[in-house]
Amino acid sequence: MTEQEISSALARAVNEVREKNPMAPSITNTVTQDFVANAQLAVGGSAAMLYLADECESIAKIAPAFYINMGTAMPFYAETLPRTAKALTANNTPWVLDPVGIGLSSLRTDILKQLKIFKPTIIRGNASEIIALAKLWDLIEDSGGLVHGVESTEKVSSAKPAALALAKFTGNAVAVSGEEDFITDGKEEILCAGGSELFTKITGSGCALGGVMAIYLAVATPFIAALTATTMFNLAGTKAAEFDAPASFKVNFLDNLYKLTAEEVAGNFRVVGSFENMFDFSL
Amino acid sequence: MTEQEISSALARAVNEVREKNPMAPSITNTVTQDFVANAQLAVGGSAAMLYLADECESIAKIAPAFYINMGTAMPFYAETLPRTAKALTANNTPWVLDPVGIGLSSLRTDILKQLKIFKPTIIRGNASEIIALAKLWDLIEDSGGLVHGVESTEKVSSAKPAALALAKFTGNAVAVSGEEDFITDGKEEILCAGGSELFTKITGSGCALGGVMAIYLAVATPFIAALTATTMFNLAGTKAAEFDAPASFKVNFLDNLYKLTAEEVAGNFRVVGSFENMFDFSL
Amino acid sequence: MTEQEISSALARAVNEVREKNPMAPSITNTVTQDFVANAQLAVGGSAAMLYLADECESIAKIAPAFYINMGTAMPFYAETLPRTAKALTANNTPWVLDPVGIGLSSLRTDILKQLKIFKPTIIRGNASEIIALAKLWDLIEDSGGLVHGVESTEKVSSAKPAALALAKFTGNAVAVSGEEDFITDGKEEILCAGGSELFTKITGSGCALGGVMAIYLAVATPFIAALTATTMFNLAGTKAAEFDAPASFKVNFLDNLYKLTAEEVAGNFRVVGSFENMFDFSL
Repeated sequence: MTEQEISSALARAVNEVREKNPMAPSITNTVTQDFVANAQLAVGGSAAMLYLADECESIAKIAPAFYINMGTAMPFYAETLPRTAKALTANNTPWVLDPVGIGLSSLRTDILKQLKIFKPTIIRGNASEIIALAKLWDLIEDSGGLVHGVESTEKVSSAKPAALALAKFTGNAVAVSGEEDFITDGKEEILCAGGSELFTKITGSGCALGGVMAIYLAVATPFIAALTATTMFNLAGTKAAEFDAPASFKVNFLDNLYKLTAEEVAGNFRVVGSFENMFDFSL
Repeated sequence: MTEQEISSALARAVNEVREKNPMAPSITNTVTQDFVANAQLAVGGSAAMLYLADECESIAKIAPAFYINMGTAMPFYAETLPRTAKALTANNTPWVLDPVGIGLSSLRTDILKQLKIFKPTIIRGNASEIIALAKLWDLIEDSGGLVHGVESTEKVSSAKPAALALAKFTGNAVAVSGEEDFITDGKEEILCAGGSELFTKITGSGCALGGVMAIYLAVATPFIAALTATTMFNLAGTKAAEFDAPASFKVNFLDNLYKLTAEEVAGNFRVVGSFENMFDFSL
Repeated sequence: MTEQEISSALARAVNEVREKNPMAPSITNTVTQDFVANAQLAVGGSAAMLYLADECESIAKIAPAFYINMGTAMPFYAETLPRTAKALTANNTPWVLDPVGIGLSSLRTDILKQLKIFKPTIIRGNASEIIALAKLWDLIEDSGGLVHGVESTEKVSSAKPAALALAKFTGNAVAVSGEEDFITDGKEEILCAGGSELFTKITGSGCALGGVMAIYLAVATPFIAALTATTMFNLAGTKAAEFDAPASFKVNFLDNLYKLTAEEVAGNFRVVGSFENMFDFSL
């Protein structure tokens, strides 16, 4: 795609979500559900969080997109997640997978192995998670590094081979979030930046980003959906950084998500400036 | 009741909650628990969220009121909800039912069918939910419409027959929230308005409204409890709408809930203005 | 310890957390997870909430500290909590126990009885909870008083014997939060104050305080960790009280937690002023 085509596609996605208010239901962690839902609503989408397998199967048939974040796994996830992914695939419903907490338990490993055949429409994670998932799915060599918990210990650039391997396997998009953001669908590759160090001082910006990508999946291609959400987070984060403390920053970040114009998003999707001004917001 | 009697009852409810700080424990969805609890505290009440059947039974005996919101149903709801409703009835503890997500799964349908005999003290929902519940309980004819998810697809006015049928069956109050709000106990009928379009851009205002109705059930009749909470949400929402973005709006809405005077509530419970200024806040 | 030694230790704790960003994972209630995590991040720590026994066991081996809050108990807590406490003890990982909801159900009573042998590094609760726990563990005489729910019905001073008995038994620290705050490790005893009445109008300040104590356990002794977190909450709460309504207060409280200097904390850990200006924030 040319820069101009990407710009136009971003503007279209921003506007179409505001017109259609698409719902992207979620299975997502209990810590950040409020933030995820409010971010989805702020960009013009609609939210619903669910836990039960049959409810997720039922809504997978009618929702235009779905978000699965493995955050605070509960015992019944073993049934809910694979059944939901299967139903999404059967209904051609696009979905975002956020493999947060990969490696923490055999339950997560088992579930993530089962999800491989369903080829998520967007995989979003920090560098550590993207590398761990590509290893778990045998798409890159496992040199033995370990991932613990929810914090990224890797740079975004180090996850590029893993992201490309995942994108080639799924035929869809992969987004590595961090200091800078790497987004690819195996053909297009783009490096974005922006945001604020304050993203590391609030919880859930990564989860909210995944949830908002799911909203844009309702109206755009995987690559454009990932890029639209990432660009909006970078722009709204940069604007909100005029507030110099985390809770005010969070309020103003959501306000700015709501206020961003399609033109701003279309004109600023790259924003790769000096690396000193970029920060990790990997949670 | 005369307009003057209603006004006096509203002022009394506002003041009595601030004096007594009654607790209305909740079984409620994980997405909006923080908002529900903070709204309950902002009006002067007290909050506790629970999941376990025996804990709910135990607290049903001592709490002055209770809130049941079916939002993010979990597997153990099948046991917790009917046992809690039974304990509430056995102890004459008034409670609010919010049948959010009605129709999403056989679990919800089964639970809601079981709750019928316990006749909730207030039923609160958007128009779609109220209509669906009246159909599920065989109180109005089921013409075959479907409800999916948590968004209202019906106008408040279309739910009036369903609301009246439910109120007549329970002998208690029903509140239909939306663009305007219809509140009835089968005898009294009142249409309120106010609020802000921004209620549709934040998550959980409907849940918080149900939770606050439960607080007022501790000191007032079902009709007055529903009307007090609705009036406060409409007034605080209208005031907060001076902030033109959702996260600032939410902060200021809670601040205004806390600051509203009994006189303001008593003098503005109807606020039915031009319909152009009214909006759906059905989630 | 001399006043000077305490001051130095507090300043060191504040700075070391900001340098090292230690993670204190939590098993904590679903109502206030967002607030707990954001408070932990605001002081410079890192957060992860978990439910599954094997994940907690796994992270107990590598985390520098842990937080267990019994808030919204779910059925699987019966397995998760004792196994986690055992793993924490086996790995010498310090942890905070917040026995919120003690007395509400036999599940909680059973779990808390099992936790006794693992001697929590800090026990934090309101006066009612601390007294109830000391009784449950047969450390003080049970005169038959009952605790219901999550609100304190006792004054902090009345919990002093219970707190000392618990500290003597565990050999660790106990913090009683309320109007004033009593902190002891069985040798040192300190009474702090500050904060704001508005803490009683928002949900989760007690939970967030426990979570932040766990962050400081990663770098300080139990007594200093409890005192650092308590002092920061009192100072940030006093500053935020310039906002006269709860939601603005909460935003500004978190902002102030983030902005407090080590010098401010070191110089103001006691702040016992006139008792008229102190309030209960026991939830």
